[in-house]
Amino acid sequence: MLKLAIDMDEVMADTWSKFIHRFKEQEGFEISAEMLHGKELWQAVPESLTPRVREWINEKNFFRDLPVMPGAREVVAELCNKYEVFVASAASEFPNSYKDKYDWLQDHFPFISWKHIVFCGDKSIINADIMIDDRIRNFTQFKGRPILYTSPHNVNVTHYERVNNWDEVAGLLL
Amino acid sequence: MLKLAIDMDEVMADTWSKFIHRFKEQEGFEISAEMLHGKELWQAVPESLTPRVREWINEKNFFRDLPVMPGAREVVAELCNKYEVFVASAASEFPNSYKDKYDWLQDHFPFISWKHIVFCGDKSIINADIMIDDRIRNFTQFKGRPILYTSPHNVNVTHYERVNNWDEVAGLLL
Repeated sequence: MLKLAIDMDEVMADTWSKFIHRFKEQEGFEISAEMLHGKELWQAVPESLTPRVREWINEKNFFRDLPVMPGAREVVAELCNKYEVFVASAASEFPNSYKDKYDWLQDHFPFISWKHIVFCGDKSIINADIMIDDRIRNFTQFKGRPILYTSPHNVNVTHYERVNNWDEVAGLLL
Repeated sequence: MLKLAIDMDEVMADTWSKFIHRFKEQEGFEISAEMLHGKELWQAVPESLTPRVREWINEKNFFRDLPVMPGAREVVAELCNKYEVFVASAASEFPNSYKDKYDWLQDHFPFISWKHIVFCGDKSIINADIMIDDRIRNFTQFKGRPILYTSPHNVNVTHYERVNNWDEVAGLLL
């Protein structure tokens, strides 16, 4: 069975939507889709607000209640029949997120065993045949087939096989 | 630079010594080195006490104050000059251990960046050139050079390059 490594943030989990919601609720600042196009999230807010991104992301519980990306649960469940699916998240950058991410997976993807959950930093340590990720830096040393999952920050990236949503993942891999 | 993946429990951290101490203090049961020879820890205690192993290992903070294996800190620091060192622990089996293990590494191995900390389940996902581990199951699909770190449970295992302590790791890899 081929090993398929799937990223969490902005691929399985809609992390940015929580930031957008927070900026609106706590700072009264509305972020539109147009403002994010081709940018990192912190680039779309006034400089005075950029420290919030790092503050919030390091909060205990921040990752606990993220929305699931539409279709992710259903497609990942099917992928598990055809591939050895690993969830591979760069959680070590935010150590408060480890348990939240684990518990979130138990809630929404209970069919993924602890054996297939990987929290790492640099993804060059990942040995897989296929990797779905929104960050091209994770593909640099990857020897398998990289698949770029569209996120506002990567819309201008070329040279990678790309999927825009989980329907397209299903179309490509199932 | 070659990638070197190093296991935590029973390699960097003396996990069994905490169990031995607990069995003595809380259960009045003394475990000697002879009793452990060639066995798993749970096999060395009376059947009535075996559930303690799973109870304790799932406790929050259990992994937080483990003793460092003699010489580990000094040798790992030197290895970092010659190899790209990753710490790879099967922490996903015990999700309460993630943060404890991360904090323990910050205390005792502060020179290891979050980028090089990997908490996984099945280690077949690890892409490294060399792996130091006390569990041969982690070598099954490993394509690099496996080095077995001696622990009571693996003393009768043959067919693997073996190190008995951190001085021997230094002798082999430095």
